[in-house]
Amino acid sequence: MAKLVECIPNFSVSREKDPAVFNALVDCAKSVPGCFLFDVQSDGNHNRCVFTLLGSPEAIEEAAVKLTGLAAEKIDMRKHQGQHPRMGATDVIPFVPQTADMTVEDCVSLSKRVAERIWNEFGIPSFLYEDSATRPERRNLADCRRGQFEGMPEKLLQEDWAPDYGERKIHPTAGITAIGARMPLVAFNVNLDTPDVEIAKKIAKAIRGSSGGFKYCKAIGVMLEERGIAQVSMNMVNYEGTPLYYTYEMIRALAEGYGVKIVGSEIVGLTPGKALIDCAAHYLKLENFNCTEQVMEYHLIGME
Amino acid sequence: MAKLVECIPNFSVSREKDPAVFNALVDCAKSVPGCFLFDVQSDGNHNRCVFTLLGSPEAIEEAAVKLTGLAAEKIDMRKHQGQHPRMGATDVIPFVPQTADMTVEDCVSLSKRVAERIWNEFGIPSFLYEDSATRPERRNLADCRRGQFEGMPEKLLQEDWAPDYGERKIHPTAGITAIGARMPLVAFNVNLDTPDVEIAKKIAKAIRGSSGGFKYCKAIGVMLEERGIAQVSMNMVNYEGTPLYYTYEMIRALAEGYGVKIVGSEIVGLTPGKALIDCAAHYLKLENFNCTEQVMEYHLIGME
Repeated sequence: MAKLVECIPNFSVSREKDPAVFNALVDCAKSVPGCFLFDVQSDGNHNRCVFTLLGSPEAIEEAAVKLTGLAAEKIDMRKHQGQHPRMGATDVIPFVPQTADMTVEDCVSLSKRVAERIWNEFGIPSFLYEDSATRPERRNLADCRRGQFEGMPEKLLQEDWAPDYGERKIHPTAGITAIGARMPLVAFNVNLDTPDVEIAKKIAKAIRGSSGGFKYCKAIGVMLEERGIAQVSMNMVNYEGTPLYYTYEMIRALAEGYGVKIVGSEIVGLTPGKALIDCAAHYLKLENFNCTEQVMEYHLIGME
Repeated sequence: MAKLVECIPNFSVSREKDPAVFNALVDCAKSVPGCFLFDVQSDGNHNRCVFTLLGSPEAIEEAAVKLTGLAAEKIDMRKHQGQHPRMGATDVIPFVPQTADMTVEDCVSLSKRVAERIWNEFGIPSFLYEDSATRPERRNLADCRRGQFEGMPEKLLQEDWAPDYGERKIHPTAGITAIGARMPLVAFNVNLDTPDVEIAKKIAKAIRGSSGGFKYCKAIGVMLEERGIAQVSMNMVNYEGTPLYYTYEMIRALAEGYGVKIVGSEIVGLTPGKALIDCAAHYLKLENFNCTEQVMEYHLIGME
């Protein structure tokens, strides 16, 4: 198995508003050997685009640095307008481990190497956020970004807001970048056989970490209008710390208290296979199961 | 995702008895571009070795043909002795799909191409077996091989035993080869909290296809002496036709009738991740889940 990491850099430019710069970034991403451009999203109203890159830690480091340099060269944040909050030409660079032998700690190291290089090579300072954060108040990206590009020169002079890498001043046109490692996020929703959204909201509150539930679960209760049923909608931000079946079984137990049953669930978008394989191992009571050794797909990744 | 196939050719030679020929076969397997030699097993008493190859259908076709040619050149079956039944220098060549976009039907086509080529290029006839079989009595490898190398000249003249490819006579020194496609096999055992092996045997009989149970399940009841408990030991020969959770839930229900509980289960060796992900999808009641689209690992396979 190869070590593979996902990198999802967000740039303050869009295909809709500035196709030349957007295309230059796409070409740059494709030009790095071993870096695979898996997906590109662009939003004209946000005037922002999001790349999904996959590759070895070395290839991804190279791509992140090169793209940040190119964005600094091509984007002038003094002229940037868009609905999405932003503080830099390369606004945020998350790193996510994608194979079982690549850990979040590996991604934290990678994030620090990139932060160091973009300061040394381009004079762009950065905050480390999420699992790379050096202090609790920097874990949350929104807290790092508060004040945005325009407010950053002043913010960096506050006692608590020196950049993690670089001096206490933004790059004049490229601003400042947030860089961090995190686990893959799994969007997991559970549907209830009730039209009463209040039940879903009460269950969501009970299971989410912020109000005393599972540490790595974010949850809200929503109504699925077209089906006339309520849903507990979750972001599982660390499926190893809080496995999906913890929340599923807890929702089942709490729903039962309201005389309500689970009718189904869904995964929105991508999930690591292991998040589901761990559930199978639980329900089948698998003993001594080693996912990376025994699951064929892990042996196929990185095979040439 | 890349299409990947597994090929597990069995040769009538061993590292222990004839290291030069064994090593020549290993070198040959490694020499085919895009073919990865995943595992090699050799048994001196059987005087037989088993290679596990992984690669694209094209690379695997090339490797299977090349290896069969080399084995024909180096191995003289008239002199071969070993405890394992055998009928050819390359005794059997199974093809197993290993990615979700590679089907058993693709492997059947591959098996026929290889069968045609080894007849045209080396004059080696073959039987198609398992899912490639052209008639029911050839599905089972043991039935094809009955009579072994020494009895084959006569067997091929029987009305029902003309080779699927080639004429009614063996290659003088390389014999005849069985070639076929099959699903990956999952070795799945379920442990019961009883020391009564008869209960495990009764449950095994109830769930296996041969006595009226699940079509793609082979099962026996065994005693785990060191733990003092009985086990239902299964070979799941098609986890899509008979998912693992079918047998697990049936064992649970039948065991309950004897006042017995499941204490755990195990997967022996390798399994396709999908065999377990399908179980997770069942227990979590996942709606509209598309394994190959939504599971990240499938996007990582074949990525360079």
